[in-house]
Amino acid sequence: MNRRIDLNADMGEGYGRWSIGNDAALLEHITSANIACGLHAGDPDVMASTMAAALEKGVNLGAHPGFPDIQGFGRRRMTLPEASLRNMIRYQLGAADAMARAAGGRLQHFKLHGALSNMASEDTALARACYETALDFDPDLTILILPLTAMEEAMEALGGEWAGEIFADRAYNEDATLVDRSQPGAMIHDGAQAAANMAAMVREQAIICASGKHLPCRVDTICVHGDTPESLEIARTVRAGLEADGHEVAPL
Amino acid sequence: MNRRIDLNADMGEGYGRWSIGNDAALLEHITSANIACGLHAGDPDVMASTMAAALEKGVNLGAHPGFPDIQGFGRRRMTLPEASLRNMIRYQLGAADAMARAAGGRLQHFKLHGALSNMASEDTALARACYETALDFDPDLTILILPLTAMEEAMEALGGEWAGEIFADRAYNEDATLVDRSQPGAMIHDGAQAAANMAAMVREQAIICASGKHLPCRVDTICVHGDTPESLEIARTVRAGLEADGHEVAPL
Amino acid sequence: MNRRIDLNADMGEGYGRWSIGNDAALLEHITSANIACGLHAGDPDVMASTMAAALEKGVNLGAHPGFPDIQGFGRRRMTLPEASLRNMIRYQLGAADAMARAAGGRLQHFKLHGALSNMASEDTALARACYETALDFDPDLTILILPLTAMEEAMEALGGEWAGEIFADRAYNEDATLVDRSQPGAMIHDGAQAAANMAAMVREQAIICASGKHLPCRVDTICVHGDTPESLEIARTVRAGLEADGHEVAPL
Amino acid sequence: MNRRIDLNADMGEGYGRWSIGNDAALLEHITSANIACGLHAGDPDVMASTMAAALEKGVNLGAHPGFPDIQGFGRRRMTLPEASLRNMIRYQLGAADAMARAAGGRLQHFKLHGALSNMASEDTALARACYETALDFDPDLTILILPLTAMEEAMEALGGEWAGEIFADRAYNEDATLVDRSQPGAMIHDGAQAAANMAAMVREQAIICASGKHLPCRVDTICVHGDTPESLEIARTVRAGLEADGHEVAPL
Repeated sequence: MNRRIDLNADMGEGYGRWSIGNDAALLEHITSANIACGLHAGDPDVMASTMAAALEKGVNLGAHPGFPDIQGFGRRRMTLPEASLRNMIRYQLGAADAMARAAGGRLQHFKLHGALSNMASEDTALARACYETALDFDPDLTILILPLTAMEEAMEALGGEWAGEIFADRAYNEDATLVDRSQPGAMIHDGAQAAANMAAMVREQAIICASGKHLPCRVDTICVHGDTPESLEIARTVRAGLEADGHEVAPL
Repeated sequence: MNRRIDLNADMGEGYGRWSIGNDAALLEHITSANIACGLHAGDPDVMASTMAAALEKGVNLGAHPGFPDIQGFGRRRMTLPEASLRNMIRYQLGAADAMARAAGGRLQHFKLHGALSNMASEDTALARACYETALDFDPDLTILILPLTAMEEAMEALGGEWAGEIFADRAYNEDATLVDRSQPGAMIHDGAQAAANMAAMVREQAIICASGKHLPCRVDTICVHGDTPESLEIARTVRAGLEADGHEVAPL
Repeated sequence: MNRRIDLNADMGEGYGRWSIGNDAALLEHITSANIACGLHAGDPDVMASTMAAALEKGVNLGAHPGFPDIQGFGRRRMTLPEASLRNMIRYQLGAADAMARAAGGRLQHFKLHGALSNMASEDTALARACYETALDFDPDLTILILPLTAMEEAMEALGGEWAGEIFADRAYNEDATLVDRSQPGAMIHDGAQAAANMAAMVREQAIICASGKHLPCRVDTICVHGDTPESLEIARTVRAGLEADGHEVAPL
Repeated sequence: MNRRIDLNADMGEGYGRWSIGNDAALLEHITSANIACGLHAGDPDVMASTMAAALEKGVNLGAHPGFPDIQGFGRRRMTLPEASLRNMIRYQLGAADAMARAAGGRLQHFKLHGALSNMASEDTALARACYETALDFDPDLTILILPLTAMEEAMEALGGEWAGEIFADRAYNEDATLVDRSQPGAMIHDGAQAAANMAAMVREQAIICASGKHLPCRVDTICVHGDTPESLEIARTVRAGLEADGHEVAPL
């Protein structure tokens, strides 16, 4: 059965003089760009230029908020009161929305970044606070979630539009979590292997674990990266594979 | 002739654990609150609580963006490319707008903060870039400007809605600039004197200089402060004086 | 038995335009000042002026490092790799040492701030990493610790000079932790009561819990605050009480 | 006449997750590393790893302080009171010194970064405040200056040890300033040309302008870069050329 499948990537993760990854090259392959919102990466100039580049390629824009921690790139866990969490998300959404409109676009989706994402995948209440804030800001946003985690529970309770996301370059444990990077085989380095994995997971609508076990779930979008030539090659190959299988690679 | 006159104050200038001034007391007297937008002061929590308090008192909300410099409180001049200036203003407006809507209000006005305001009062192109960005974000915003400065020139060229602002506690030079704080008489400490000055300037629609000279201009809003018991007393007395003269003290 | 007892306080906790507490008034009562080192509070100007004021009053200087989190005032827990923790502590120590020498003084002691202190009181390895870094920087530093916690274990293992610290305005649980602020009686508001408590704990060399239970430990220094008139009164009364009992109130 | 000549480079200019340039490759060529001190780039982890790598290659360490502006990379001019400037420099020196000692080295030199350097080259009083602070911190530091600018005047007045620095990849105007990057020929892209220029300037002890004019001055150290393969090739070729001419390439 042919499906519509989205390819997403985190973008605009530079700050001031610094940049990460090859956003321009990655924009050739993806359909949705998750834009850092200034508190862990992505100052207003980076946001503006990244959004303009994405729109020029017909790539959808989404907000990718994280913890307020430039030095830690939003990868350090922080315990915040729920009201502060909501304020912090709302602030970033408003800023990103203004930048998107000025670039001639609109925010279409929402995805949590870094430690905030990790925490939300384990904590339904936290996930719900974030997602409720997003949908309160704009009920038309599609929420990107990790299927079978607390994120899915939160969205099921809330009732908004969501998309299940899998990773092109990571192996999965049997509980739907990612194999830790320190383990052998945790990272997929080969474009052909990544493409085969993704084709199977999209077809089966399941996470297929390293062990071979199938975990049925919604697979709507695939996350790819652009930090290395290898990751760009994975993005290219995964897309080509999906199109060869007759799927439509298109924004959510 | 009776007029409608606004009293404005900069508010929400705390950050994290720190606060400045007595916002709660000041809200009893003013009609417009200029809310710091997170880059020089005012983190998302401070913005949220300040906006909620203002709305509860029927006080209008405005954005009060400044340079990205927490340590310098936005009081250090920075030379930014015009595109960066626009991005920085837009980012803050979007964030403030989202916070205002979540609090049940809307941004009604726009006022530059600190060094950015000083620079805009001297540089028409810079002022115009800031104001154009604001009106592009929301054409219904009223721009607060210092009359007879480059700010007024910029707004005249742009053609949007603006309000002329004078200060309750400062003396003026004959070129419409403020007497430097290091000079004797620069600061007005007495509520009665401030009230008399403001009453005259509103009536005459002119800045009345320390020298006695009149500089005709639009006087639509008066800026008051709340850092000290003295400044709160000035706010109270100025308002009472305007009301005694038959003016309507009301938001822009 | 008459003892030598130190009174310490966290100082220099302002940042840029913001300040907290009444450092000048508190300096009249204390003998050791714990100076924030710039990453959670205390920019270089605040450090310089606070150190100068302390030295003028004959008050000893100590470093009071915390997590790099201005917005969170170092009160948000962060999980850092041990090497990063050591680098972060060392950086702050070096900066504080340079400022102290320029002011004509020297760092005499070391006390962890906020969430970092909370974590160190629960985690011997973390406490040891922090203290080892401090003693590696300067083996003559006295380490302020919370007695009977992981901090004491860490110092016992390390073997350096340490001082046991108790709080003048807090009630204690039977496990030597502070009664949570949400509980009735957690905070001591009365100077006379605080003075009586401190006199007893110094005399007995024990933490005396709210329940009356005695936890024998070293009591070398008492932490006081200066945020409120009440806390200043506690500082004054505690000191007067100790002196009336014949103790020498003096730096470590 | 054979000379001893130093090759210096700005290093450790990453922050958190971000990095710039190829410090490892550049360390093969240079003899002095100017280490960012945390306020415009270079968090404590970056400082520690950069210093360790430099010392392993026998490269000298120096402090490279800048304005407190991570987002602007220290390239935005800020007007600070002189006392604040001194505090800011001292803070960074103390932090860098602690990191250098922990890595097993010592600070040997001092060079201003970015906008602060630009301002010091135009303003003798500002340069003097910075250099006096550095020499007050450690009188054995060698101050790197741009010859024939306000920096040289400041050092002449102060009387400390200084080294004249020229740039391998830039063309000079007749007033000893660099040709603006927007002008044709401003940047030297060819290793052989850079090597020939440097050999001549070292031999002549003069800045040789694009016009051919000689500006006699002390030439003690040459600044190279490592951002691009081209700049690394310039560093390699300049060093080889100096050695071929019989000079000793060695730290200051």
